[in-house]
Amino acid sequence: MTDVKGFFYPRTALGGSSLIPDPPWFYSGDLLTVEYRTDPARVAELLPAPLEPAPEDPGAVALIWADWQSCSSSREELLDPVRSQYKETFVVVRCSFEGKTFSRCVYIWVDKDFAIARGMHQGYPKKLGTMWQTRPHPFHNAAPQIAEGGIFGATLAAGDRRLAEAVLTLREESDSNGFVNSHPMAHHRIYPGIERGTPDAYAELISSGAAEFEGGPAWKGDVDLRLFESPTEELARLGVDEIIGGYYRQVGVTWDGGGSLAQRSATEGWKAVRA
Amino acid sequence: MTDVKGFFYPRTALGGSSLIPDPPWFYSGDLLTVEYRTDPARVAELLPAPLEPAPEDPGAVALIWADWQSCSSSREELLDPVRSQYKETFVVVRCSFEGKTFSRCVYIWVDKDFAIARGMHQGYPKKLGTMWQTRPHPFHNAAPQIAEGGIFGATLAAGDRRLAEAVLTLREESDSNGFVNSHPMAHHRIYPGIERGTPDAYAELISSGAAEFEGGPAWKGDVDLRLFESPTEELARLGVDEIIGGYYRQVGVTWDGGGSLAQRSATEGWKAVRA
Amino acid sequence: MTDVKGFFYPRTALGGSSLIPDPPWFYSGDLLTVEYRTDPARVAELLPAPLEPAPEDPGAVALIWADWQSCSSSREELLDPVRSQYKETFVVVRCSFEGKTFSRCVYIWVDKDFAIARGMHQGYPKKLGTMWQTRPHPFHNAAPQIAEGGIFGATLAAGDRRLAEAVLTLREESDSNGFVNSHPMAHHRIYPGIERGTPDAYAELISSGAAEFEGGPAWKGDVDLRLFESPTEELARLGVDEIIGGYYRQVGVTWDGGGSLAQRSATEGWKAVRA
Amino acid sequence: MTDVKGFFYPRTALGGSSLIPDPPWFYSGDLLTVEYRTDPARVAELLPAPLEPAPEDPGAVALIWADWQSCSSSREELLDPVRSQYKETFVVVRCSFEGKTFSRCVYIWVDKDFAIARGMHQGYPKKLGTMWQTRPHPFHNAAPQIAEGGIFGATLAAGDRRLAEAVLTLREESDSNGFVNSHPMAHHRIYPGIERGTPDAYAELISSGAAEFEGGPAWKGDVDLRLFESPTEELARLGVDEIIGGYYRQVGVTWDGGGSLAQRSATEGWKAVRA
Repeated sequence: MTDVKGFFYPRTALGGSSLIPDPPWFYSGDLLTVEYRTDPARVAELLPAPLEPAPEDPGAVALIWADWQSCSSSREELLDPVRSQYKETFVVVRCSFEGKTFSRCVYIWVDKDFAIARGMHQGYPKKLGTMWQTRPHPFHNAAPQIAEGGIFGATLAAGDRRLAEAVLTLREESDSNGFVNSHPMAHHRIYPGIERGTPDAYAELISSGAAEFEGGPAWKGDVDLRLFESPTEELARLGVDEIIGGYYRQVGVTWDGGGSLAQRSATEGWKAVRA
Repeated sequence: MTDVKGFFYPRTALGGSSLIPDPPWFYSGDLLTVEYRTDPARVAELLPAPLEPAPEDPGAVALIWADWQSCSSSREELLDPVRSQYKETFVVVRCSFEGKTFSRCVYIWVDKDFAIARGMHQGYPKKLGTMWQTRPHPFHNAAPQIAEGGIFGATLAAGDRRLAEAVLTLREESDSNGFVNSHPMAHHRIYPGIERGTPDAYAELISSGAAEFEGGPAWKGDVDLRLFESPTEELARLGVDEIIGGYYRQVGVTWDGGGSLAQRSATEGWKAVRA
Repeated sequence: MTDVKGFFYPRTALGGSSLIPDPPWFYSGDLLTVEYRTDPARVAELLPAPLEPAPEDPGAVALIWADWQSCSSSREELLDPVRSQYKETFVVVRCSFEGKTFSRCVYIWVDKDFAIARGMHQGYPKKLGTMWQTRPHPFHNAAPQIAEGGIFGATLAAGDRRLAEAVLTLREESDSNGFVNSHPMAHHRIYPGIERGTPDAYAELISSGAAEFEGGPAWKGDVDLRLFESPTEELARLGVDEIIGGYYRQVGVTWDGGGSLAQRSATEGWKAVRA
Repeated sequence: MTDVKGFFYPRTALGGSSLIPDPPWFYSGDLLTVEYRTDPARVAELLPAPLEPAPEDPGAVALIWADWQSCSSSREELLDPVRSQYKETFVVVRCSFEGKTFSRCVYIWVDKDFAIARGMHQGYPKKLGTMWQTRPHPFHNAAPQIAEGGIFGATLAAGDRRLAEAVLTLREESDSNGFVNSHPMAHHRIYPGIERGTPDAYAELISSGAAEFEGGPAWKGDVDLRLFESPTEELARLGVDEIIGGYYRQVGVTWDGGGSLAQRSATEGWKAVRA
C-alpha cells in the first residue's frame, strides 16, 4: 500500500509537490487596517450556526490590507521569493461561540495559490484578487515613513473590478492596531457533498490564532474608505456607517495550527468539541 | 439562526459571493493530449489507499492541455468572460478500486481561482500555473487548422519555471482521443487536521465523470514531449519512456456531481460506500 | 565597429533578443466591433496637426476587441504560444490628411510586451490592460456560435478598473464589419526630447494598413456598450450618443510596413513626404 | 489646430491619459546587485557605434534587481500603488564615448507598462518579465535584515522561463554598491523606419543619470549567480567567468531628464552634439 506524503495536495511518494508545507508557517509583513461600523444585521447575516453575533459593538468591521513575506521552517521559500511574497485584503467581523468572542474572516482575496491553500486549511474563504498598499521606505522620494503625516493608499480589485480603496494619514502612535481582528479566529471548514443536492459532506468550526506574535509600534490616523459594487462580491453590502479608525503596523507572526470547536454530523447537527 | 447560502465559500445571506455556483457546470473547449508510458512504479507510488494500480498498461500517462470556456446554468459568466475562460494542464493516470478501472488526475495547474475551487470540490489537486496551447483558426496566417499537417505547440509553467513543452503534428483522424483519461475519475478529497500532528480530519474517495459529452472528430499525430525539473514539482519524475500518441479534439462537457466511493474513519480505516 | 542586429531593442550581435522580429507579421483572430457616434468635438480634440477631422460623420467611433494569434515568417512563435497569443481593445476614429480620409487609433490596451513594441513601431499608443471576449466554439455547452442569436460579451480593464463592457447579440450577416476602421491608419510616432522642457526630438506621421487581408462572413447585431471613468484614462470622454452597430468577424491579416506621410522639423514644422 | 497634451502617448486634449507624466520622476527602492566578469568580447559586441569598450575592466557586468516605488511631482501615484510599485532586473556594462566612460543597460525586464514607457524615453531596452527579490523586514519570522548574515534571493523570468537566480549573503558594510552602474548612462534611442527595408528613421545617443541621489549604507557579501538559456534572450551569453561581488543598498533617486550625446543622420552618420 502506497504511503503518500505531503501536508496538502498533491500528495506524492516524496512529498515535494504539496502546495503548502507542514506548519509552522512564518510571516513578516505590514498591516494597513481600517475599522468601521456597519448595520449589525449585515454582520449577523454572515454568521451561520453555531455562531452568534458578538455581544458588544456587533456591527464593527475591520478591512485589512497585508503585504507579506512568508516561509516554512526550512526558510527555503525566502530564497525563491515567488514562493514567499504575497498580498491579501480581508474583512474581519466578530462573533460569539459558547459565550466567547471570536474574530471571523468573512471575505478575503489573495494573489498566490499557496495562500489560497493555507486559507482552505485555516477556513479563510479565499479568492484571487489584486491588492496594493503603499510601502514605507527610508528614502522619501517616493515613499512615506511610518511617522506623523505618512500617507498610505490601499486598493483591492477582483475580476477586473475595483472593490475597495482607502487612504490613511498617520497622526500618532496608538495603543492598538484595532480591536476587531484581535480575538482567535472562528472559521468554518466545509466540503460540499459530491452528489448533487446532498448536504455538506464535511463541516467543522475551527479556531486558530498566532502561535507567536511580535509587532512594531502601532500608528493610527485619519482614513477614507470607499467600497464598490460588483456582481460577484457582497463586500459593499457591509456599508460604512461610521469610521472607527485607521491603523498601520509592521508585524512578525508564526502560525502553528489550531483546534476544533465544533463538528456537524448529519444526524445530530452541530456538537461542540470538548477538550 | 442565520441561513447562509452559496455552493462554496464565502457563503452569505444572498449567496452571491460563492467562488463557484451550484452545478451543473458547462464547458466548451479544446483538448491537446499526449499519452506516454513511464515506469509503472512511478505511477503506483501516486496511488494511495484504497486504490491499486490498473491491471493493464499500469505505466500509461496522459498529459492534457485544455483551453476552456465554462459557465453555470445562468450562462451569465459567458458575458463577463473573465469569469468564464480558463486554461489548464493536467496529468492523468489509471488506477483500480474494487476491481474497476478509474482515471485519476495526479497533477493539475489552472489559471483562475474558480477553477481551483471546482477542483477542490472534485478532488483535482489544483495549483496555479501558466499554460498555452496553439489555437486553430479558420485563417492560416498565424494558425493551424484541425487537419492533416496542423502543428500545435503547448507549454506549461509554474513558479516562473517551465515544466513541460509539447509539439503535436496532426496526421489523421482517430477513433479515440486516447485511453488514459477515458474512465470515471477516482479522486481523494482531504482536509488536514487543524491541530498540529493530527491525521486528516476528512478523507473521502469520490468518483465523477461527465453528465453529458459531445466531441468533434478526434485527430492523432506525431508528438514531442519534454518535461523539466522544478524544486516544487515532481512531474519530471513521470519520465517519458515511450510515446503512445498525440491527440487533438474539440469537446463540449457538462458536469453535474459525482458519488462517494469510500470514506475513511479514524477507527475503521477506509470503508467502501455501498449504493 | 560593432554591427548589432535586431529589428527592435535590445539589439545584439546575434539579433536573437529583439522584442519583435522583422516584418512581415501575421495575424489570425476574431474581432468584436462596436460602432457609435459621439460629440464630433471630442474626436476633433484627439487629432493633432497635421490632421483634420474627417469630412463625413466626424463623430463616428469604433471600439474593437481582438483576440489574436500572431507570428513572424518563421512561424516559431506558434509553437511557443506565450509569444504568439495576445488580446487587445482599441478605439478608432477617422481623420483627414491632405484631403484623404484615414482611420486612427486613439487609445489601445494590449496584454503582451511584443504587442506594445509593435505598437510603438506602428504608432499605436499602447498600454497594458486586461480584456476578455466570449469565444465561439463548435459545442454550445458554454459558447455561442457565429450565427443568429449568438451572444458575445466583451470587457476591458486597466489599472485594476473596468473601463468598458459590451454585449453583442448577432442578428444577420452583414456586408461590412463597420466603416470606421476601414481606412489606412494615420498615426504619429513621437520621441519626447531627452532634455527637460525641450520639444519632441522626433515626430512623424505615418500610414500603414494590411498587406494582405482575408475575412470570414461579417455578422451584425444588437449591442449594448458601457464606458466607465478612470483617473488615468479618457475613454469615457468619448461618450456614446448613438449606437451605429455591433459586428463580429474572423480575419487573417498580414502586416508588412507602411509609409511616411509627414515629418516635423524644429524649423519648418510639419512637411508632407512626397513619394 | 488641436493642441494635444501629455508627455508620452496617448496625447489628448486634457493630457490625462499619458502613460507617463512629465518628469521629474521620483523613486524609492532596494537594489540587489551582482557584479561579475565575462569575456570582454561579449560586452564589446553589445556596443554599437558610436560607442567603444571601456578602457578598464571591459568585461565587467552588473546584474541588478530593483524593487521600486515611484511617482511624479503630484505624488498621486503613491495613493493608487498599482501605478507606483514595480520591479525590474537589468544588466549594465560600461562603455566609452569620446574618451569618457559611461554605464549602459543592455538588457532589462520590468513588470509594469509605465516602466516600459519610461524606458523608451530613457533608452532602456525594456521587456516584460517577472522578478522577485527577498525583502528585508524588521521582524525576522520570514525576512532577513540588512545586516551581517542577512540572506537575500533574487530570480528573473520572462516568457514563462527562468532566466537568472542569485543568492546574496551579507558580510559587511561596503564603501560602494559596485562600480559598473556608477557612471552616467549612454543609451541609444531608435525608431525603425516604417517602410520595410529602410534604415532607422531616428537614432540618437543620449546620456542621463540621477538628478538627486540618496543612499543608505551599502552592504557587500558572498553571492551565487546562475544564468539560464532561453530562445528569446541572450543573457546567458554574458557568462559568469568571475564573481566580483554582491551588494545590497536602499536608495532614493530623482530623475529629471538627460542630454543628447550624438545623433545619426542618413547622410553624415553619427555626429556628436556639442553643448
